[in-house]
Order: sequence, then structure tokens, then C-alpha cells
Amino acid sequence: GYGRTGVIYYEDGVQTGGFNNSQVISRLRMNIDAATSTDQGVDFGARFRLQWDQNNGSRGDGGTTNAGKLYVTSQGLTVEVGNVDTAMDTNGLIYATELGAFDRSVGGNALGGFFAYESSKYGNVNRVGVRALYEIDNLTVQASYVDPDQTGALEAFHKEEISFSVDYVWNDVLELSAAASLNAAGYDDHDVYFVGARYAITEQARIGLNYIDNGDVGSIPGIVGPNTVSDFGKTIALYGDYTLLDGLTNIEAYIANNDGDWTQKETDNAFGIGVNYDLGGARLGASLQRDYQERVTADMGVRFNF
Amino acid sequence: GYGRTGVIYYEDGVQTGGFNNSQVISRLRMNIDAATSTDQGVDFGARFRLQWDQNNGSRGDGGTTNAGKLYVTSQGLTVEVGNVDTAMDTNGLIYATELGAFDRSVGGNALGGFFAYESSKYGNVNRVGVRALYEIDNLTVQASYVDPDQTGALEAFHKEEISFSVDYVWNDVLELSAAASLNAAGYDDHDVYFVGARYAITEQARIGLNYIDNGDVGSIPGIVGPNTVSDFGKTIALYGDYTLLDGLTNIEAYIANNDGDWTQKETDNAFGIGVNYDLGGARLGASLQRDYQERVTADMGVRFNF
Amino acid sequence: GYGRTGVIYYEDGVQTGGFNNSQVISRLRMNIDAATSTDQGVDFGARFRLQWDQNNGSRGDGGTTNAGKLYVTSQGLTVEVGNVDTAMDTNGLIYATELGAFDRSVGGNALGGFFAYESSKYGNVNRVGVRALYEIDNLTVQASYVDPDQTGALEAFHKEEISFSVDYVWNDVLELSAAASLNAAGYDDHDVYFVGARYAITEQARIGLNYIDNGDVGSIPGIVGPNTVSDFGKTIALYGDYTLLDGLTNIEAYIANNDGDWTQKETDNAFGIGVNYDLGGARLGASLQRDYQERVTADMGVRFNF
Repeated sequence: GYGRTGVIYYEDGVQTGGFNNSQVISRLRMNIDAATSTDQGVDFGARFRLQWDQNNGSRGDGGTTNAGKLYVTSQGLTVEVGNVDTAMDTNGLIYATELGAFDRSVGGNALGGFFAYESSKYGNVNRVGVRALYEIDNLTVQASYVDPDQTGALEAFHKEEISFSVDYVWNDVLELSAAASLNAAGYDDHDVYFVGARYAITEQARIGLNYIDNGDVGSIPGIVGPNTVSDFGKTIALYGDYTLLDGLTNIEAYIANNDGDWTQKETDNAFGIGVNYDLGGARLGASLQRDYQERVTADMGVRFNF
Repeated sequence: GYGRTGVIYYEDGVQTGGFNNSQVISRLRMNIDAATSTDQGVDFGARFRLQWDQNNGSRGDGGTTNAGKLYVTSQGLTVEVGNVDTAMDTNGLIYATELGAFDRSVGGNALGGFFAYESSKYGNVNRVGVRALYEIDNLTVQASYVDPDQTGALEAFHKEEISFSVDYVWNDVLELSAAASLNAAGYDDHDVYFVGARYAITEQARIGLNYIDNGDVGSIPGIVGPNTVSDFGKTIALYGDYTLLDGLTNIEAYIANNDGDWTQKETDNAFGIGVNYDLGGARLGASLQRDYQERVTADMGVRFNF
Repeated sequence: GYGRTGVIYYEDGVQTGGFNNSQVISRLRMNIDAATSTDQGVDFGARFRLQWDQNNGSRGDGGTTNAGKLYVTSQGLTVEVGNVDTAMDTNGLIYATELGAFDRSVGGNALGGFFAYESSKYGNVNRVGVRALYEIDNLTVQASYVDPDQTGALEAFHKEEISFSVDYVWNDVLELSAAASLNAAGYDDHDVYFVGARYAITEQARIGLNYIDNGDVGSIPGIVGPNTVSDFGKTIALYGDYTLLDGLTNIEAYIANNDGDWTQKETDNAFGIGVNYDLGGARLGASLQRDYQERVTADMGVRFNF
């Protein structure tokens, strides 16, 4: 797991419903793993996550233990059941534009909603997921299925999400990724598509391009929870990072264009720049970004893994 | 602890309030233990349990940490305080008819309610339990006491349960067990009695007979929570299991007769057959059963310990 | 962490809202720590606490994981963020009058409220704290800051608490401590001040004197939660403890005088006597005390660390 803390500034009191712009934001995450192997060499395992997020509505009051994940692994194939990782959320490049110690990207991340490994308590105890992941050499292929309510009682409102993802690394320099999520986040006919590529120009510099079709349902910063809008559009993000000669300082940036049209939107362009400094076991990071409502946000913090 | 997952089918949508018959049901259980020894050789210890149960109303939304148990052990005598194991629930044969990877027995298990080690949060923070357990050679004797509300404010509705249990193993081939629970589950005058015996005919085959006087209060599959009925009657269960020559496959079965008379009952006979296959560290299991309402249930799954 | 259990008696049903006087009271506490060190020799760490308290309203139903604490330590200086320890609560002598296995002092502890490391869930997810602690030789200096709601939305009701504390040990025989907490527990103009000293007369006997200015807001036994009273006054407590020649038995006592004036008060003097017997890894303890309402309370129990 890891811990991180620092300050996040977001114009217009986005984090506080219109009050203070700056907040101390901390996270403490511990993964609780257990595993065993059978005589045949099949590995079984399971995970809980214990996580606290400062100010968070569902896990801000204390450490929260989420729904469990069980898995079996053999010869490159992993099958998960329960609170599974989803194909879209674990795609290799979907979050590649994120900056700083808090790994935030207000412009480059998907605006369209999809299911992910759930760190909070389930809203519906009858949610169930299954995921299959196959890894061979430089290729990762996966599919996931999440039923928000397997009892069938809420069939009319909650659809079953199916997602696919493929990641390929060519010659250690070119990363290619694609993913699709159908009935994403359980919303009927809300589909999210993603294609991305990143290329290492030199050992110190990388450049990448992401394309996301956001579908119709998602959340935008400052609005809590998924909210349906008529058109979240497509996002194209150009991003890159450069490591200084000290080998410790990494500078990163993105510029994103979204052609969607929703009520609060004020510009088609968002961008950000960030920096991380490696302490060896911990890192200091900061970012400065502007979102599609022309609001400025900045953060500075420290993150350490354990 | 352990993890298990699979599919449980139960006719008439018993698991979903009338909707889907089949559900993916997973459990992830981790026991969190701590212990210390004094200079005099007395052992003190404590346990929390962290458990998630797919679809479960009280611990289905995420891993739930239950009320703690503290114990002291010295020279075969263990005394527990807090969220204790109870004498009836830890009797050696009371659950001996259970089948498959999910350890279910819709006909052979007690229908009458009694207190057990509570994996969910307490419903009443003032619940308290004490248990004494004495083990010597092949004999296990225990007594437990659970007060659902020690403040005394709810004395009129919640009685104190007292339970006793004795287990004896003769010559490694004959298991004899008996237990009694008075004011069981805190209900006035609701008493549960149990007598059971199991005999190993050969190293591969065992046969057993259980007798349960269920008392007046209990729960039947498909009805949530303890519900008072006029007569849960007595249950007699004949059961056995046979291990194939591969030493890995175990076939098990039971047939149970209940002479009680409650509204939903349709037959006096329930039965089931199951199989488990040992993977070494994990096991595959399945069962097929019919309950006292003539509903068929089946399950298939995998369970692994860690 | 540690476990403890036993019986607490409190006259007039203080623990149960007027019902039974005696209650079995148990606690199970486990601290979940994680830490890492950077190449520069800076230590980062974090803590969750998992705690269950028998009968407790907010963590009596099961083990409760609190909000996290993150810290960084280097060369004697520690800075904490999140659910931090506070300066007043970690002062060296503020709890020095406590007796028995349960560490209770109904007369000598502060009646005035102040923030402490919170073992239960936060009442407000936007609470945040920062603490700086500096330790050198025999000197400990610290300051803490707790904002009950950093969003600024509740500024009118919740003030920010600032606390200071200093502890000094002279020649291993004299302990000197002082602390102040301003806008304590978030209440406007409610300030708590503390000065204390303890002297080791011989290797077996210690004697101490504590002075507390309680301020205006606090809680008294038998009244749940902080409640404002006109005058909690000042408390002066004289206390001491003596270790018998066996080196295992420790006898302790206090007498406290409070000049405050609140509705339920019946006397200015409270006192108590206690004893602890060291089992090596565990201890047995008991106490007998009388509070400012002339109610008698007694406890007896066992505590073991792990």
C-alpha cells in the first residue's frame, strides 16, 4: 500500500461545495493479501483493501474495508471473482496523463464513467464481478464483467457492464493500448472506448497520445457522483514526460482537447504540468492544471510506498 | 482464514426474494490474532475476524470487523470473554451433515436458533459472552453464557443463554457428542438439545446419526432472521461419507426427518448428496439437496485455506 | 496493541443509563503500522488503529478502523498529518493519576474537553490535524493543530484548536510537564491549561502534583458527550505510587480537589486507590474511587500487551 498527503487547491471551492479552495488531502491505503498454492501449482489468493481518504464522503471518516476479491492463477491466466479489477480501469495507458504526487489529471482522464475495483463499501451488496486476465511476454489481454445487482430485482435500471482491454509493448519503446467498456458503469447504452500509444524517444523522454470516447454518463470535477449529460464528447490528449540528468527529477505535462458540450463547459482545452522528485522510497510531487471550466487547480504533496 | 466462491442455486428465488435462482456467492474470511505469554506460562490472546460475504445483508457491502474475543489459556482450560464461541455452535458433530465446498445442509442442520460467534457487527453493543472450555485427551467439555444486553434495560425481552457441550472420541473410531442450549438465542424457554454419534466403519467410510430437538424459535431457508413458529419439532439425520481409493475424492450424503409442523412445510424428509475433491491446499466441492419445502438447491464451488 | 477485560462497577447505573451498576468491559486494540525509509535517512510511516470497546456507543458493535495518521521523522523531529496525536493528550503527566487495569481516574483526569487521537470514526470527514514533535535528550516539545472542519463551511461553530506541551525529566528523578490547549475541542474561548510534577523519592516511591484549569466545556462521568457548563473550575490532584519489595505489586492513589460549580456536583473532593500486579507480559489491576458526585466506582481486570 501507500500513504500520501499534501495540499490540493481548486478554484471556486470545487472540493468544498463553494467554501475553502485549499484542502489538506491525505490517503492511507493498505492492501491485505492472502494466498496459497495447490500441489498442482495453481495459485489461489484473495485481497481486502483498507483505505482512508481525507474529506471523502464514503471513506473519509475512517479506514474502510472493501468487498473482497478472490482469484486463481495458473500459467499466465488469472481469473478473479468478487470485487474485481476491471479491464478499462487497469488498461496500461488510460491514466497515463496523470501528474504529481496525487496522480491527478482533470483534463486527460476519462470523463465517462465505468466500473473499477471499488475501494469503498458496495452501494449494493448484490454486486458481483468476474475478470479474466492473460499475460504472455509483452501482451496483456483482459475482459471483465460487472453486474451491479445479480439478484435480477433491479434489471430495469442496472445493466451489466462488459469490458475488454489489450496492452502491447513493442521493443521496450512503444506501448500500445486499447479498451472498450459496454453498458459502462451499468448504464444502458453508455459505452466508453479508448485507444492510446506512448513512445520513448530517448531513455529520458517519452511522448504519448490518448483518445477517449467518453459516452453519455460520467462525472466532472466539482459535481458529485455520475451525472447524465447529453454529450461528454471525445477527448484527445497529448502528453509526455522528461527525466532530468540527475535521474531523480521527472517533469511531465499534457494538453487535452474535448469536443463535448455540457452545461458547465467553458473551453475545449485543458492542460497541466507536473513534476516529481524521487526520494528513494518516497517522492515529492506537484502539479498545476486547468480544467474544461477554466478553473485552475494545483497540488503539492509527498507519497511513500510500503 | 479462507476464501471460497462458486454458484448456489436455490429454487423459488430463495436467495433473492423471488428473483434469480442462481447467485455467485463468495466469502473471504481473515482471522486477526494476537497473543502473548506471561512468565508463569499462562497464554493470553485475542481475535478479530474480518469477513465479507457476497450478497449478505450485514457484511456484503465490504469486509466487516466483528466484536473482539479475549481469552486466557492454561493447562487445558480456556476462558473466553467478549464475542465468544458458544458451546452449541462448536460442538463436534452439530454440523456433521454439511456438504460440498459451501458446507451447507438445509435438512440436517439445526432449525432452532442459538447464539454463535458473531461475524457481523453486534446488533446490541451491550451483548457480552463468557465461555469455559476444558480439553483433556479425547474429551472436550465446555459451557458458554451469552447475555444479549448486560445493561439490564431489555431484561423483559432478552434472556441470557446458557449452553453446555461435551465431545468424546473413543479409540479414534467413535465420536460421541451432546449439547444443550437453554433460553437459546436469548428467547425465553426456547431450548435446543443435541445428541450425535459418528462411527468410522473403515478408514474410508464413516456413518453417523444426529438428533436435534429444535425448540420453538429458529430460521428456515428463505425466511430472513429468527422467526417464531409454533413447532420446529425434532430432527433425526442419518449421514455418512466415503473416500475413494484415490484418497482425494470424498462422497457424502445425509437423509433427515423432521416431525415439526410449520406453515411453509411440505414434507418431513430432506436429503442431500455432495462431493469434495482435494486439490491439496484447496478443494472443489458440489452438493445437491432438497429441503422441507420440497425446494431443490445445488451448489458448486472452490474453497482454499490460508 | 493490547487487550483488557474485567468488571467495572459504578453507582447509580452511570454506565447503563440507570440500569445495572456492574458491567463486563473489554477492549481490544490493534495498531496497524506501516513504514519506509528514504535513501536520505528520512522515515515515513502511517498508522490505522483497529479497536473494539465493549458497550461503547461508537465502537462497541465491532472492531472499528479509525482515520489514518501519516508522519515523517528525521533527526528527532516528527511531523504528523491526519488523525494526529495532540499535544495535550500526549503530555507526560496529564494522565498520571490513573489507577488499575483500566487506567481510570474519575477525579484526577481533566474534566475540560480537548481533541485527542480519535479511535472511533470521525464525526466530520473534513477534520484534519497537524502535529510537530521534537525530542532531544530529556526534553520533549510539541505543538498540535486540529481543525474540526477544514472546508470552512462550519467556521461559526467549530474553531481550530491549538495545543502546546513540554515535558522535561531532570536527573531521572523529577518529571516536569506543562501544556495548554486553546479553543480546545473546537469550542470558542474554551482553554485548558495544565502543569504537573512528579518526584521519585526512592526507587520504589513516587509522589506527584497536577494542576488543571479545565475551562468551560467538558464531560463528566455519566453524561454522554461534551456538555457546556458554566464553570468546570480548577483541579488540583496529589498522587503517588509505591512498589512493594516483590517488585511486582504496585499500589497507587490520588486525592483531587476541584473548585468548580456545576449542577450535579456534590463535593469538591474526589479520591481513589488502586493496585496492579505484574504477571510479566500481563497485569492484574483493581481500583476503588469516589467522584465529585459522591458516587463510588470500582474496577478489577486483567490487561495484556502484544
